[in-house]
Amino acid sequence: MQRILSTELTAYAGEKVTIAGWVHRLRQLKKVAFLIVRDAAGFSQVVIEPGHETPEPAITEGSVVEITATVTANEQAPGGVELTSPEIRVLSSVDVPLPFELHRPALSAGLAAQLDHAALALRHPSRARNLRIAAAATAGFRAALEAQRFVEIQTPKIVESATESGANVFALDYFGRPGYLAQSPQFYKQLMVGVFERVFEVGPVFRAEPSDTARHLAQYTSLDAEMGFIADHRDVMTALTRTLSGMFAEITERTGFVPPAVPAEIPAVHFAEALRIAGAPADEPDLAPAHERALGEWALREHGSEFVYVTGYPMRKRPFYTHPSADPAYSNGFDLLFRGLEIVTGGQRLHRYADYVAALTAAGEPLEAYRGYLDGFRYGMPPHGGWAIGLERLVARLVGAANVREVTAFPRDLHRIAP
Amino acid sequence: MQRILSTELTAYAGEKVTIAGWVHRLRQLKKVAFLIVRDAAGFSQVVIEPGHETPEPAITEGSVVEITATVTANEQAPGGVELTSPEIRVLSSVDVPLPFELHRPALSAGLAAQLDHAALALRHPSRARNLRIAAAATAGFRAALEAQRFVEIQTPKIVESATESGANVFALDYFGRPGYLAQSPQFYKQLMVGVFERVFEVGPVFRAEPSDTARHLAQYTSLDAEMGFIADHRDVMTALTRTLSGMFAEITERTGFVPPAVPAEIPAVHFAEALRIAGAPADEPDLAPAHERALGEWALREHGSEFVYVTGYPMRKRPFYTHPSADPAYSNGFDLLFRGLEIVTGGQRLHRYADYVAALTAAGEPLEAYRGYLDGFRYGMPPHGGWAIGLERLVARLVGAANVREVTAFPRDLHRIAP
Repeated sequence: MQRILSTELTAYAGEKVTIAGWVHRLRQLKKVAFLIVRDAAGFSQVVIEPGHETPEPAITEGSVVEITATVTANEQAPGGVELTSPEIRVLSSVDVPLPFELHRPALSAGLAAQLDHAALALRHPSRARNLRIAAAATAGFRAALEAQRFVEIQTPKIVESATESGANVFALDYFGRPGYLAQSPQFYKQLMVGVFERVFEVGPVFRAEPSDTARHLAQYTSLDAEMGFIADHRDVMTALTRTLSGMFAEITERTGFVPPAVPAEIPAVHFAEALRIAGAPADEPDLAPAHERALGEWALREHGSEFVYVTGYPMRKRPFYTHPSADPAYSNGFDLLFRGLEIVTGGQRLHRYADYVAALTAAGEPLEAYRGYLDGFRYGMPPHGGWAIGLERLVARLVGAANVREVTAFPRDLHRIAP
Repeated sequence: MQRILSTELTAYAGEKVTIAGWVHRLRQLKKVAFLIVRDAAGFSQVVIEPGHETPEPAITEGSVVEITATVTANEQAPGGVELTSPEIRVLSSVDVPLPFELHRPALSAGLAAQLDHAALALRHPSRARNLRIAAAATAGFRAALEAQRFVEIQTPKIVESATESGANVFALDYFGRPGYLAQSPQFYKQLMVGVFERVFEVGPVFRAEPSDTARHLAQYTSLDAEMGFIADHRDVMTALTRTLSGMFAEITERTGFVPPAVPAEIPAVHFAEALRIAGAPADEPDLAPAHERALGEWALREHGSEFVYVTGYPMRKRPFYTHPSADPAYSNGFDLLFRGLEIVTGGQRLHRYADYVAALTAAGEPLEAYRGYLDGFRYGMPPHGGWAIGLERLVARLVGAANVREVTAFPRDLHRIAP
């Protein structure tokens, strides 16, 4: 008999059906036993009457079962139906106690225990929901960008030089030569602007972060986009705002979770003004986490927006490919804060070959290490810019998770390389 | 004035418009000059009459220009229109000759030169088209799987042990400890069957292939899927066939490229029979490339199919997690050959904890190295299986490229780590 899902049961009232899933809970009452079976869609309640033949091996929490039974109306059951007169077949038997229970509304285990037993913890509906939201955000990202003529690309994760920042890079042995894990697809997405004008990539990026915080991972999922033929960074911000709006709509569509509204025009403040709002000294080169929180509160209070753009970051704190603003001390780079946390970095890039040569020379960098990258500019590149969204940070902020590890299936950090 | 694309010109006949793009070709005739401008959508022909004011800097092939001009009907022009009385603004000037010309139907440069100057070579319409086909195949993969209830996942690319095969793995320094680049998301996608029942991932995988062939890369894009509650590998093959069909339809939809038909039922031969068809000795443990080619010819001749499944590979050549068939010498593992080349490997996996313990013990592997993976089976896993498609191989075979590097933007191999 073709298996159906728990959510389809109501359509089969009075009929015999087959379901399958995990034993979520087994409750032995005086006369009857109730079995709650979890599948990908939800839960089914199965009633085991006294005298029911016990299957072999015994039914235990976590075991995988296939059950053929009659769908019977019961107002008290979840969904208004339950399964009666079951024939139970154990597909996979669990013969040890679970290290923590999955059937309570919240996982009682601490984060470390959850991460140690990720294969089990992720089955808890709250953890699984976060990953579904991440999947929906990713799908929405792609759909919104494809509607704006962006083309998907795949770029190398092993690179020749530790170029972008030098620090915090993983080194590896590449056929006897040194290689590095890419900290971002930055250079490659810029080169691909020369091919498709507008490109995006969803992929892993790697940071050998020596610090252990609630918002850093050694590997995270970067939602990258880059677009050509822009006037300046404001065209990039417009495309990003539209993309975020599409992502949030897709989350609601797929998961029922309702993120806050993305304003058609997200408030934007210049970096110098942002320092003032945050009460920071005027010569600060960057925003500290406390400043970001203050700006988030300000945007909500003054503009009713959970989002705020900070534009015009000082050139001295942005990477060499950053395009300056009219005032050369400031850049056409921006960050997007969501609920007081930076979740996107973006901006306009340099596009003329001579500007790259000058910027790299000023930074004391050898041009030879950048030859493949410089090729793209030497042979003609339009004004362009883009952004990178940190998926785990975005989802953590959305669902109110205090730690990005709560929304990452198998996080990697300073202390953790398994499972 | 809002820029329009080359493909939109015909809708603006008689009007003044702005286009932008790369100088694809500059042809100076006796009286007039013709400028062909390439943008993401196609080409525009611009006529420069005698006495036209020369822009500064000079127009050169590869330069990026923005042109405001009148759309004028001309039957001889591509698309039936050309741009006249242009005002030309150079956005980005190229002041060196290109290492090879982009305006001929085929790139004259050899593959090595193309890869050295990837930023330029990928702009050739033939190279760009291959990447568009790859993007469409990827989008079709996701859409077909989401229609079958699969959920997208992101998994770690840095792993603790060189588990799956041991050989051909990249080693790295992970915060002072040894780490390895994942050769596949195999273990993680299996664990996620315990969460979502059906999952997929599109991501990079890494093989330290010491051999330099036309079909191997050190990094390639793997289109992975895994599904639970199957009867055996044939359920996996059914889902895969449906998915390929969706991918091919999406390629046609997005690019106009027409792949061969995917039969509703792809012919399948058992490994023992495949050896006989290929004229190989009956005790061969695997299929050599020549055998795969012979099987491809056989499937086309006997079944009119460009595809053929080979099922029941010998257990001794498949990884430890492979589920045996009724005859324990053979497996429920399969390969899918497309035009005589293996492009997919898949099969049913073991799902019972005790079977994993027995398989790893027989292989002499320490259980401790697999503890996070084994957790998934210890706490209940349904019968399941899946597959991995090599994106670059599939696209190379589709477009008739002799080398996977022709359909990869920035390939990585034994000799190449840049650009």
